[in-house]
Amino acid sequence: MTLNRQIILASRPDGAASADNFKLQEAPLPPLAEGEVRVRHHYLSLDPYMRGRMNDSKSYTAPQALGEPMGGGTVGEVVESRFEGLAPGDRVLGHGGWQEWSQLPGKAWTKLPTDDAVPLSYYLGAVGMPGVTAWVGLNEIIQPKAGDTVLVSAASGAVGSAFAALAKARGCHTVGIAGGPEKCAYAEQELGFDVCVDYRPHADAQSLSKALKAVCPNGVEGYFENVGGMIMNAVLPRMNAFGRIALCGLIAGYDGAPTAIDNPSLFLIQRLKMQGFIVSEFPKSWAPALKELGDLVKAGKLRPRETVAQGLEHAPEAFFGMLKGKNFGKQLVKLI
Amino acid sequence: MTLNRQIILASRPDGAASADNFKLQEAPLPPLAEGEVRVRHHYLSLDPYMRGRMNDSKSYTAPQALGEPMGGGTVGEVVESRFEGLAPGDRVLGHGGWQEWSQLPGKAWTKLPTDDAVPLSYYLGAVGMPGVTAWVGLNEIIQPKAGDTVLVSAASGAVGSAFAALAKARGCHTVGIAGGPEKCAYAEQELGFDVCVDYRPHADAQSLSKALKAVCPNGVEGYFENVGGMIMNAVLPRMNAFGRIALCGLIAGYDGAPTAIDNPSLFLIQRLKMQGFIVSEFPKSWAPALKELGDLVKAGKLRPRETVAQGLEHAPEAFFGMLKGKNFGKQLVKLI
Repeated sequence: MTLNRQIILASRPDGAASADNFKLQEAPLPPLAEGEVRVRHHYLSLDPYMRGRMNDSKSYTAPQALGEPMGGGTVGEVVESRFEGLAPGDRVLGHGGWQEWSQLPGKAWTKLPTDDAVPLSYYLGAVGMPGVTAWVGLNEIIQPKAGDTVLVSAASGAVGSAFAALAKARGCHTVGIAGGPEKCAYAEQELGFDVCVDYRPHADAQSLSKALKAVCPNGVEGYFENVGGMIMNAVLPRMNAFGRIALCGLIAGYDGAPTAIDNPSLFLIQRLKMQGFIVSEFPKSWAPALKELGDLVKAGKLRPRETVAQGLEHAPEAFFGMLKGKNFGKQLVKLI
Repeated sequence: MTLNRQIILASRPDGAASADNFKLQEAPLPPLAEGEVRVRHHYLSLDPYMRGRMNDSKSYTAPQALGEPMGGGTVGEVVESRFEGLAPGDRVLGHGGWQEWSQLPGKAWTKLPTDDAVPLSYYLGAVGMPGVTAWVGLNEIIQPKAGDTVLVSAASGAVGSAFAALAKARGCHTVGIAGGPEKCAYAEQELGFDVCVDYRPHADAQSLSKALKAVCPNGVEGYFENVGGMIMNAVLPRMNAFGRIALCGLIAGYDGAPTAIDNPSLFLIQRLKMQGFIVSEFPKSWAPALKELGDLVKAGKLRPRETVAQGLEHAPEAFFGMLKGKNFGKQLVKLI
């Protein structure tokens, strides 16, 4: 009998979330039902949106149920199948959650190619949801022309990495914002950013805004926002007329820190457009996005870095580290 | 020799603007040059955007030059013409500014119909720039379907009045926000709003938001913003998924009061779109907008109220009254 280790949401955070909100448990796998597949998870994806699901508040996804394994994207291998379209040995992508195994209907999984050069873990990052997120924000909302200046916060993360490769492919002046000199050097040297600005030495939005002005001398046409707060307040004065802001995340506020937009009159003065979005609501974008992202990886133009925690029991620690920006590129947990 | 009375911008405001920033002066009209027309202004339009032009700061229009007559929309009658397309007696619309007469190139004026039932002053309001502003925000940005709930702040003003008639014509549940029970009663009884909420009794955004919830039980699909600050913070929690915000003005902040958007995460959670806009940048909208607005007036479905100050010397006082919401409907100055 196979024992499945799981991390469940044991309690909801009161303000800041902590490892105490999670609990590791073991449960035997039941027999496989008709139509299901048994999948051994190889990697679990850790993503900022999971923090929102820990709360019991109105959001774009239902709150994570208490006492259940945390939801999350996984890649793995089919070990046993009672579903016609999948066979043992198939590599699959789906929402297996924070556990080592899952038994879900076969149709809940996407079968991955076995004959390409893309590592399995990339399907959770650059050639997965975060990569498609960058693609949608860039193409559906920012819609840049060659020569435009585009800016992204959390530049060295999974979304930022893909954003840089996609924006460079469109001939944009591509600027990142990240925390610390190592991440900025990585963004410039490996991810293809023309320049990356370290926000950490700046005490306030005004100071950061001045630094952004120096590297965006012609202003900014498109901004992809993952962070919010001081960073958004620093970027807004740099936006050119008719600029577009793709609002993807506000990680600065996930634990309750203030993220107010101090000067909304800039939206009026510069006729800016801001749109919040969720990648799952752009189903038609996935196929072209995954194709382009895969091609960029194969061409060596998208070389995402990963931070990999080893073992399910380290998922909470890795998750909170990511929320504080301790990861370097896509944060994963290796489960096998 | 005709003496022309003018109000010039004598100094720029330091924080709050006051009548001291203006100066009334008299100047003789020079001989009319080739291509020009001499126009006797009948009405001067007072509009919130003029407050922004008093400052010497980056905005979507150039600052008002010091020592020159304040710019502004006017309607009047041609008295003398050295321009082929206009003759004495023609009714015209243009930017004559805060003065009793002007001598401008004839091509700067739009000749108005003489055979319709639309009063001359309406071409500065419901069938003019403010009306077209409402049309653009509603049709180009909010794009409502029949049955949608749409909300507008400064509901009883020139823009709000037109917004109500246009939104009702599209089958929307049309809700206004205005200051005081008289304006709200007027909005409901004369302008066609289904309901109008008085913001004045509410001490904070949370209280106003609760009142809005009561009259928008199904949430809000589209919001037309003229005010900002507490009112925007009260509206945002009422927005439904994929809601659209047409950002037209932030009158609450024109004298430096805080207008921060306290909780931008609502844009993400509800995938909202917000767009700042200026009516002059939608040239293709003017003809269909003016046609529809004129038809609504003739059909008695748009009956804008006007607040008319008598005499150029009262323009500054009327202007500051409007910025504080003392006007009732379109604020004009009658010059003849």
